[in-house]
Order: sequence, then C-alpha cells, then structure tokens
Amino acid sequence: MTDAVPAQLAEIKRGAQELLIEAELGKKLARGKPLRVKAGFDPTAPDLHLGHTVLINKMRQFQQFGHEVIFLIGDFTGLIGDPTGRNATRPPLTPDEIQANARTYEQQIFRILDPAKTQVDFNSRWMSQLGAAGLIEIAAKHTVARMLERDDFAKRYKGGQPISIHEFLYPLVQGYDSVALRADVELGGTDQKFNLLVGRQLQEAYGQEPQIVLTMPLLEGLDGVQKMSKSLGNYIGIAESADEMFGKMMRISDELMWRWFELLSFRPLGDIAALKQAIAGGRNPRDVKFELAREIVTRFHDAAAAERAQAGFIARFSARALPADLPEILLFADENSGDIALTAALAAGTGLVASGSEARRKVAEGAVRIDGEKVTDPALRLPLGAAHILQVGPRRFARVRVVAKP
Amino acid sequence: MTDAVPAQLAEIKRGAQELLIEAELGKKLARGKPLRVKAGFDPTAPDLHLGHTVLINKMRQFQQFGHEVIFLIGDFTGLIGDPTGRNATRPPLTPDEIQANARTYEQQIFRILDPAKTQVDFNSRWMSQLGAAGLIEIAAKHTVARMLERDDFAKRYKGGQPISIHEFLYPLVQGYDSVALRADVELGGTDQKFNLLVGRQLQEAYGQEPQIVLTMPLLEGLDGVQKMSKSLGNYIGIAESADEMFGKMMRISDELMWRWFELLSFRPLGDIAALKQAIAGGRNPRDVKFELAREIVTRFHDAAAAERAQAGFIARFSARALPADLPEILLFADENSGDIALTAALAAGTGLVASGSEARRKVAEGAVRIDGEKVTDPALRLPLGAAHILQVGPRRFARVRVVAKP
Repeated sequence: MTDAVPAQLAEIKRGAQELLIEAELGKKLARGKPLRVKAGFDPTAPDLHLGHTVLINKMRQFQQFGHEVIFLIGDFTGLIGDPTGRNATRPPLTPDEIQANARTYEQQIFRILDPAKTQVDFNSRWMSQLGAAGLIEIAAKHTVARMLERDDFAKRYKGGQPISIHEFLYPLVQGYDSVALRADVELGGTDQKFNLLVGRQLQEAYGQEPQIVLTMPLLEGLDGVQKMSKSLGNYIGIAESADEMFGKMMRISDELMWRWFELLSFRPLGDIAALKQAIAGGRNPRDVKFELAREIVTRFHDAAAAERAQAGFIARFSARALPADLPEILLFADENSGDIALTAALAAGTGLVASGSEARRKVAEGAVRIDGEKVTDPALRLPLGAAHILQVGPRRFARVRVVAKP
Repeated sequence: MTDAVPAQLAEIKRGAQELLIEAELGKKLARGKPLRVKAGFDPTAPDLHLGHTVLINKMRQFQQFGHEVIFLIGDFTGLIGDPTGRNATRPPLTPDEIQANARTYEQQIFRILDPAKTQVDFNSRWMSQLGAAGLIEIAAKHTVARMLERDDFAKRYKGGQPISIHEFLYPLVQGYDSVALRADVELGGTDQKFNLLVGRQLQEAYGQEPQIVLTMPLLEGLDGVQKMSKSLGNYIGIAESADEMFGKMMRISDELMWRWFELLSFRPLGDIAALKQAIAGGRNPRDVKFELAREIVTRFHDAAAAERAQAGFIARFSARALPADLPEILLFADENSGDIALTAALAAGTGLVASGSEARRKVAEGAVRIDGEKVTDPALRLPLGAAHILQVGPRRFARVRVVAKP
C-alpha cells in the first residue's frame, strides 16, 4: 500500500480489457485500506494453462500492492450438476470431489499467488444456508428486462432458442457472492463482464458500495490468432516440463511475444519498454524471447531448470544444425481424424516437396527428418497440437504446428 | 365414487370457466380411484365473502363425489414478505401468524367442506426443505419465453415496466406444489389459469401425469356488474348476521339470482331448471329468491336462523308499508370522501326530489325516512356499501346502494 495511487492504477490497468469505473477505483485506493479483490473459478477439475494465469497474475499484482485476494471456488452450482438433465456428462460434484479440486487449484495457483495472502473460499458457505426463500429475495433485486440485455440471452430470446429460468439465477448467485464477500473489486474474463456488473447492481441493492469490475482479455495461443485452449492444441500447460515450455515459447512470433510480456511477465512496464528499445537498436529478438521463456519456466519450475532448458534448446539446434528462428506454419488437422498425414504436411502443407508421392519417395530414401530424427514410416501422421521442424534433405526446413481448423 | 362418470363431469363443469382437459379428466375419473384435488390459498388473514366460496363449493362437490381435497395454504411465500422491499405493508408472516390464519380459514371453510375429508396443508412443508439448489432445479424445468407468454408479464415487458425475476419464481413454486402433492386436479380463479398450467408442465417434467386444470369465474357482487369485493362494497361476508345476509340477498336482481344459484347453491342442476320453469309458469320470483337466501343463510348459520330472517324480512316490509321488490339504484360514492350526501342521493341520485334544497326542506319537514325511520339531520351522509330504502312523503320510494365508481 506504499505505492502511490497513480502508479498502482497504471499497473492494474496493464493488459486489462476494461476497468469500470476507474474514478471509483481511484477513490477506493486513495483510502489507503487494503481492498477485497475477488475472482471466481469453476469447481470442476482444474488443469491450468498459461491462458488461465492471466487473471491469476492480475490477482498477484493486487496482492503485491497489499490488497486481500479471494480465490472463490463456485462450488455451489457444481453441487447441483446440470439441472436440465440434458447433459449427462455434468453430474453433480460431491463435497469430497470439490475439496480435491480445490487442493489441485491450490497446488497450481500458489506458484503465482502468495499462500499467506490468499483467501480460498467456497460460495456454498453462504448459498447452502440461504434456502429457496433467500434465493427468491435475491431474485427480487433484479429485473427480467435487465437480464435479457445480456448478449447471449438477447440473441437466444430473439432467435427463439430456449433459455431456462435457472440460467437467470446463476448470474444472481455470482453477483450475490460479491455481496456476501463485500468485494471491492471483481476480476474476470471479458466474457464475464455482464455477470460482474450484476454483482455491482446487487451490492447497491443491498446497500453496499458497488465493486470495481476489471476484465482481462483471453490470451492468444501459440498461433497468435486463436484463444489459447486445450481443444485447439495451441496451449502451454503450467504442469508441462521445463523443456516443453521453453521450446514452445521460443516458437511464438515476435508480435505475440510482446503481448505475452504484457499479460504473462511480472516485469514492470518500464523494463518492457527498454527491451523494445534494445531490439530497435539491433538486439536479437531471440535473446529477448529467451528472457521471457526463462521467466515463465522459472515461475513454474525454478531458475536452474530454466537455465538448463535454454542450454538444451541451444545445444539441440546447434547439434542438428536446425535453424532456431523459422516462422511457424499452421497445418489444419483433418476434422474427422483429428490429425494430418506426414506426406500431406510435406507436400500441400509446407511445399517442402511437390507432391504426396515425392514425399513418400523422400521418406523411402531416408531424406526426411522430424526435429532432426530420421523418419522411416511413410504412413506417419502428426496429431493435433504437434509442433516440429520438418526437414527434407540437408537444406529444406519448415517449422509446423498442427491446429484445429478455425 | 358411485356416480357415473358423465354425471360427475356435468356437475364438475357446472359454473366452471374452463376445464383443461376434459378427456383427461374423464380418463382419471373412469379409473374409479379418488382423485387428489388441490386448491391454493393466500396465507394472509382470511375474511371470506361469498365470492371466495365459489371455489370452495367446487371443492365440496369433488368431496361429495368421494375425492380427496387438499386445501393448500401457500405460506412459504408469505414467510418471505415483500422481497422487493417496496411494500412496507407486506411484512413477512411469522409461523404463529400463519397457524392462526390457518385456524381462521378452517373455522370458515368447514361450514362448507367436510373436515373429515379435507387435508389442510402448507407448502412450506416441502419448500423450506428444498434449499436454493432445489429451487434452481425447478427453475431449470421452465423457460423464460414460456413465462413471458403470461398476459401480465407480456404486457409489462412490452410496455417497459419492470418485472422482478422473483416474479418468475412464484408460478414455479405454485406449480411445484402440484408435483409435491401429486395433484390430479387443481382448482383456481380464472386469473390463476397460467399458474395452474405451469403446474401441468412441471408435473410432466417430473414424470408425473399432468393435473387437470379447472378455473372458476369470479362471482359478480350485489350490483350484478362488478366482481364481488370488499373495496367495492358489493359483498356479503360469510360472517355477517343472518338478517344482514338475508336482506342483502333479497335485493339482487332476478338475473343475478340465477347466476348465484349456479355458483352458490348446492341444489342439483335439475332442481334449478324446475325453479325456472315454475317462474315461467307464474310463480313469484321473490319466493324463489327466498329459497336461495334461506339456503345460503342456513349454510353459514342454521335453518332456524334462516326462517327467522325470512319472517323478520317480511314483517319489516309489511309493518313499514315499504315495497319489498323495488329495483335497486346504484349511487356512486364520492371518490374523495368515500360516501355520498343524503341530499344528493335524494335529488340527483334517485330523483325523489327535484333539488338539493328541496331535499333539505323535506328533511326539515320530517318527510324523509330511511328504511322507515325518520331522518332529522339534513347533513347526513351514506357510507360506501350502505343499502337502504329512501322515502319522501307517503308514496315516493327508492331502493339504493352506495357503490364505488367503476
């Protein structure tokens, strides 16, 4: 809380999509008391990737400014499962499962957050006490028209697609969480903006000062185009090995590197500006990417592992004489099989050879390598998410990644 | 259960506004097992008038056919009060108040229903157990679009008037009552039709056979035009004295008498047809009205009280030489004061005198009587609901009733 309000505001706004309302946040900060900063998370088994950490990084920032951070697990709705009964794959979670998931969360988030300054809470704590009567009282504080203003509701209502009434209750439950926690700030993805605003409205209805709403953008994945997601295969999981992480990180474009600096690095904005200047002055962008990759690997492993990963990366490319800074070519996986034939990748995909039959011949000749390893099977297929350097003969290279068709 | 299905159906449909769906009811009746017949009532302090008894009479009919009748007090929502906080006059009821109100209901309804065959129940029994999670599960079974089809919701939504989300939950609670009770039939006023249909839909969603919906019309009050209501002053309370009841009943129009026979009398349809024929054959309608009045007074007092009330009624009119069969003139009460000046009633209201000043002169002369009693105060005012025979001199009469402006 020693930082001046303008400096705090600048870092809080860093990378944020939207801050509502900045003047109110300024007032809250100026009081000099720690703010209660809430972010809600699904109670289903978490397996976080870097995209998820954007929000957690922002929580860490608040924590470092001396504020109280509440990692809220929305277990109450998880205890219900899918009440429409349509989704058999969403059975209710048991309290034991929720506790286990919470521990898994903690193992992951405490690589970023300070455990001593993080309050992990569960909204079942108040929602289970509330009763049907309590829920009705909350529902009385919000109107149907306002709820139908939410984008996806508006579209579905106009399009004649059914909206179950309980879908109106979930934003109210989430909003009431802010009342129960007396939140000063709520963080969420851009897709959460409407729900976060419901929290503001409910707090006002309950006579509280409305919370500040801070939305963070979704992180672009390795391809730099689509949002990072498991199903698209363009992600870095925070449980991946140091070598995997480091290698994937080295393949992103320079443009994406700056975005990731903004959203994933803990280095102050001044540092990042200096790095940009250095590149403009002739520094090799690869070396700056090394810095980013080392920072992230250090966060989820440690500094020694990051050094080893970098040394290994350099050795691998020197030893195999592979160019380290090839641009990446995205290959679309077949929609049915979810993968792509190596021959197709060599021919139509990258143009390293002229045709599928030439690709097969080159494999038979022993002239095709993947990441420096000779290929012997002409029927080999590359799965979704695979990222390699393909090589035909001594001088033809292409860096590829297999992604889902957008 | 001895009556044949067609005979039961004919009496069940008697006076009803709508029966959904008759074929389904026929099937249920044909099984020969007692049906579970539900009707819901407000938990607020009841003080019933004849209008309220229309529904209770219909319950009695089912009871007499051997079915189980459930008098459901909707105390769960009463325990909440007005959750919007806008209506300070609707504080939550305490469980003690609800029990007291239930006893008051019982004292009144057991003049019509057989206590041994009536199950008085409270929806808090299941709603209090349900929790917020249970309510969300119910809400998942119904859609926003369907709810917005309800007339008053549709009008308010289109007109930009707010609908609180909890208003969507009340019909669901009422509908779920039918699930919890496994109701075969639900009775209600015409204004309840939408809610009763929600009960059908929810029962189907919970895998039950949907209930039959039977709506009863609102009873016209003494004026024969507007619905019977306390605030309009056109009602007969079931706690009124035998003389009051009898006297008020004798003043209704012949046309209204037949409507009341249909909705208030327990006499079979055949009897009523015979009475109509008798009048067509020359019987004095006044004598038939005597029969209706005696039946109703007997129900809420006893046969001896009804006989005495009739004898008193006849004696009063003979002794004072008042005509007993004058048509009634409705006088509109002043909207601000809620009453009307006697002078205005005599002049503009009935035309018994030409002007207000003539009215005052006639009072001063001692020529004005109310129900045979001489009036001495020229400033006298007649309150809302007052029903009298006004008289000026020996031969000018008018029967009046003070009602609210429609």
